[in-house]
Amino acid sequence: MAQNIYDNPEFFAGYSRLPRQVQGLGGAPEWPAIRAMLPDLNGKRVVDLGCGFGWASRWMRKQGAASVLGLDLSQKMIERARADTGDAAIEYRIADLDALALPEAAFDLAYSALAFHYVRDFDRLVRTIRKALVPEGQFVFTIEHPIFMAAQNPQWLDGEDGRKTWPVNGYAIEGERRTDWFAKGVLKYHRTFGTTLNTLIEAGFQIRRVEEFAPTPQQIQTTPQLAEELERPMMLLVSAS
Amino acid sequence: MAQNIYDNPEFFAGYSRLPRQVQGLGGAPEWPAIRAMLPDLNGKRVVDLGCGFGWASRWMRKQGAASVLGLDLSQKMIERARADTGDAAIEYRIADLDALALPEAAFDLAYSALAFHYVRDFDRLVRTIRKALVPEGQFVFTIEHPIFMAAQNPQWLDGEDGRKTWPVNGYAIEGERRTDWFAKGVLKYHRTFGTTLNTLIEAGFQIRRVEEFAPTPQQIQTTPQLAEELERPMMLLVSAS
Repeated sequence: MAQNIYDNPEFFAGYSRLPRQVQGLGGAPEWPAIRAMLPDLNGKRVVDLGCGFGWASRWMRKQGAASVLGLDLSQKMIERARADTGDAAIEYRIADLDALALPEAAFDLAYSALAFHYVRDFDRLVRTIRKALVPEGQFVFTIEHPIFMAAQNPQWLDGEDGRKTWPVNGYAIEGERRTDWFAKGVLKYHRTFGTTLNTLIEAGFQIRRVEEFAPTPQQIQTTPQLAEELERPMMLLVSAS
Repeated sequence: MAQNIYDNPEFFAGYSRLPRQVQGLGGAPEWPAIRAMLPDLNGKRVVDLGCGFGWASRWMRKQGAASVLGLDLSQKMIERARADTGDAAIEYRIADLDALALPEAAFDLAYSALAFHYVRDFDRLVRTIRKALVPEGQFVFTIEHPIFMAAQNPQWLDGEDGRKTWPVNGYAIEGERRTDWFAKGVLKYHRTFGTTLNTLIEAGFQIRRVEEFAPTPQQIQTTPQLAEELERPMMLLVSAS
């Protein structure tokens, strides 16, 4: 079973105060880029893998999705998602993405935001999703970027002329990475860009678009600290079908 | 016109002594990975973009390619390629990839090794290649990896515990990069991973495989200095159709 850091009270308290958890999708600077990758949701059956508090699940229903199944490992997240949702067409369930079972050809869209870097067996997960989608189904997900994940100690360095510089080492050495983020030793899994895409292709997906989130000039004007996201990508966004 | 650094005598002298120029394909550690991405060459009409001394052009003919058109900006490279080749089915021509014109539907395979990072207008080039290929044609190329290219000063840093660490900054800021490599101010063009793949997809290509060259344990045993290539990828290999 995957490490369930989200039910750690210390982690949960910190995590719950993130702008994206308090304000929802509008608090995530990459949301406009994700939204541009999503298909028309009208009438779609959606599975939201790592749904957290259900912000995206509820938004998709408002866009006309026929039904949304939100899955998350964390009991606390699912409880809060259920409490915040009054919609019979959205169902929330506790589920471990490393042991996921889904009905076959039951969904038109699989969506996931920042959850797959906690998954040990990405290949198994991708094949499960492939089977759960109808043949013309779509798959849109975001993940921590391999450039962001790779290093032993992923923290800003002071580069020349004071330019913020991100360290990369161990890039080709895939597997466990432990970082301190609201709690000590949060376990994530580093995979290269190549592995991420080839896993999708080998499972039968066609890559439609790849984005490495970078803020727009307008976003930097509103939120100057976002400028550092130009130095190195923190998130990878992938659309496949 | 693209910067023609290869005809700079100082550059050419240094470049010509690289193991991959002296020994040919066997001197390039990524060659086995490229070879695994190439289709069966038997009867194929190939265009080799940035053919240099013609090592790959000649190899492809030995594998059964019907014809090879080798293109390079450098007069010195083309002269040497012609001198080293005695095969009427291989033609070498001086060509600027930033102003390339090719006949339509004339090739089964477009191949390029470590040339496209000198190209300013990648979109134009990719569309030209798309039109030059037959509908079921294939496109295999290698390019300097965006992780390797991005930083203002792309040189190893001493990380913690003496671990070699590669700097990344300015990743989202695409465009000119100038580095010193056998000559001062060699001009290259940084593009993100996303831009590279999306340019292919938007031109009508389907991504088949993406590799970020990393040495095998056996290669590291034979050539210990290759171990640093595990820390950060220097080359990106892409197969599309």
